[in-house]
Amino acid sequence: MTPYSELVNQRFADGLAAVEPTGEAVEGNAFLHQLFTRKAVRRYTDEVPADALLDLLTAGALCASGKSDFQQATVLRLVDPAVRAQIGAMFPAMPWIGSSPAFFVFLGDARRLQRIGELRDKPVYNGSLEGFFNASVDAALVMQTFMLAAESVGLGCCPISVIRNRIDEIAPLLGLPDQVFPVVGLCVGYPAEPGHVSLRLPRAITVQRDRYDDSAMPEHLDRYDRTRDARHAITQQRATAKFGVAPFYGWSEDKARQAADPEGAAFPKYLRAHGFTLD
Amino acid sequence: MTPYSELVNQRFADGLAAVEPTGEAVEGNAFLHQLFTRKAVRRYTDEVPADALLDLLTAGALCASGKSDFQQATVLRLVDPAVRAQIGAMFPAMPWIGSSPAFFVFLGDARRLQRIGELRDKPVYNGSLEGFFNASVDAALVMQTFMLAAESVGLGCCPISVIRNRIDEIAPLLGLPDQVFPVVGLCVGYPAEPGHVSLRLPRAITVQRDRYDDSAMPEHLDRYDRTRDARHAITQQRATAKFGVAPFYGWSEDKARQAADPEGAAFPKYLRAHGFTLD
Repeated sequence: MTPYSELVNQRFADGLAAVEPTGEAVEGNAFLHQLFTRKAVRRYTDEVPADALLDLLTAGALCASGKSDFQQATVLRLVDPAVRAQIGAMFPAMPWIGSSPAFFVFLGDARRLQRIGELRDKPVYNGSLEGFFNASVDAALVMQTFMLAAESVGLGCCPISVIRNRIDEIAPLLGLPDQVFPVVGLCVGYPAEPGHVSLRLPRAITVQRDRYDDSAMPEHLDRYDRTRDARHAITQQRATAKFGVAPFYGWSEDKARQAADPEGAAFPKYLRAHGFTLD
Repeated sequence: MTPYSELVNQRFADGLAAVEPTGEAVEGNAFLHQLFTRKAVRRYTDEVPADALLDLLTAGALCASGKSDFQQATVLRLVDPAVRAQIGAMFPAMPWIGSSPAFFVFLGDARRLQRIGELRDKPVYNGSLEGFFNASVDAALVMQTFMLAAESVGLGCCPISVIRNRIDEIAPLLGLPDQVFPVVGLCVGYPAEPGHVSLRLPRAITVQRDRYDDSAMPEHLDRYDRTRDARHAITQQRATAKFGVAPFYGWSEDKARQAADPEGAAFPKYLRAHGFTLD
């Protein structure tokens, strides 16, 4: 197996001296090796993963941790071709949403805990920011666990956050009641493309000790942009009508342009009309 | 290895017919087996995990997925004994927070993307609900991945959400600037107790197809409470002064009582004073 020092370098390229950790469970740990080489997969073979396998992965995903054992995630699997087609049609630029062999929606479910309060005659209000936050995080933990489980059996996945941008149409389509909302969708299938390992920000930026300090971020960012560009250049510049054509177009230029055109405006409005005060 | 049907039954006990999935990567998949038997661990041996190992796990955790590749999570490892002691002293009922061999805080970092906008001269505002949500989810994905990586090498973990309840003291202690906030802390160490596998809600409640429907939730909940109680009864009732002593005290009674005394009031107030409009 590839040494960890090499795996870490392929993923971070931040020049940190990597000490090879040892220990029985560390050497040859298939899961750790899988982690460092994981990739988003957006093109799939026609093979539909077996129901028994998807059920196993879903059950495994629900073994994720959760806030206070409140268990505020619900997993919705979309199998109805009409529903898939309707959602797919909303995102023509992302054809994998409509066509992936399997598709899941991970729901933040703040409703269940409030209902449990009613059933047990206790005054529970779960539409606060805390309720929204905890349900969101629970659903995220389940989604990440699902992905890692799926990847461990050779499947590829692509998380779909844009479904929140069309929440006003998608919520009724999925019959979502108040206080239940999509955190993220997930395309799943057997990979039909090799994909590429996406370089992460240097750990000098993302890993810190005791006190937060991002003063050195700009210089590390410049180096990251260059290294990443050398490995896998971004071929299409965003919003050139607004921002022009950049002579060097790195990750940070791309992300700044993307974030300058903010998405998600519909989501807080929807939440506030459907059971959340977010206070 | 234990058959999956048995593993799933141990975790869910929902009587669903479990078909044993097959396939080369499925049979004997160590990660999937690990998933079904994972447990929160709050008591640790004195052995401090090696730095090289924690660095590897942190790097692996940062291979988690993230919204739009914005990479809005920052991992803070607390090693300063004075800082550990101060945080530990805030939560005397949870002594593992101050004493675990290693402790991490997973930060939602909405600041970085906004700063990247400034560095690249693009108008980025990331204090919206969308910015808060995406940074929160990113940090959650990294935390879950860290836990699964740690568990794969024999470590045990316990997520700590209560740190958000003391955000006004903890944020200055960790030097957190505006738009950077703790999503969750994590105690890490080698387990000194066997722990127990916590039964999850039946999948009839948490897994659905095409359209959300929780009409059968109450009956499934009653059965879950009974099954869970038979496996691992809750020995201490909450808030008996307010709610009395219940003749049968199941999971849902416990969670209703817990949620009736809502936590997290300080968090939205802090966020709104530190760079977030949450609109």
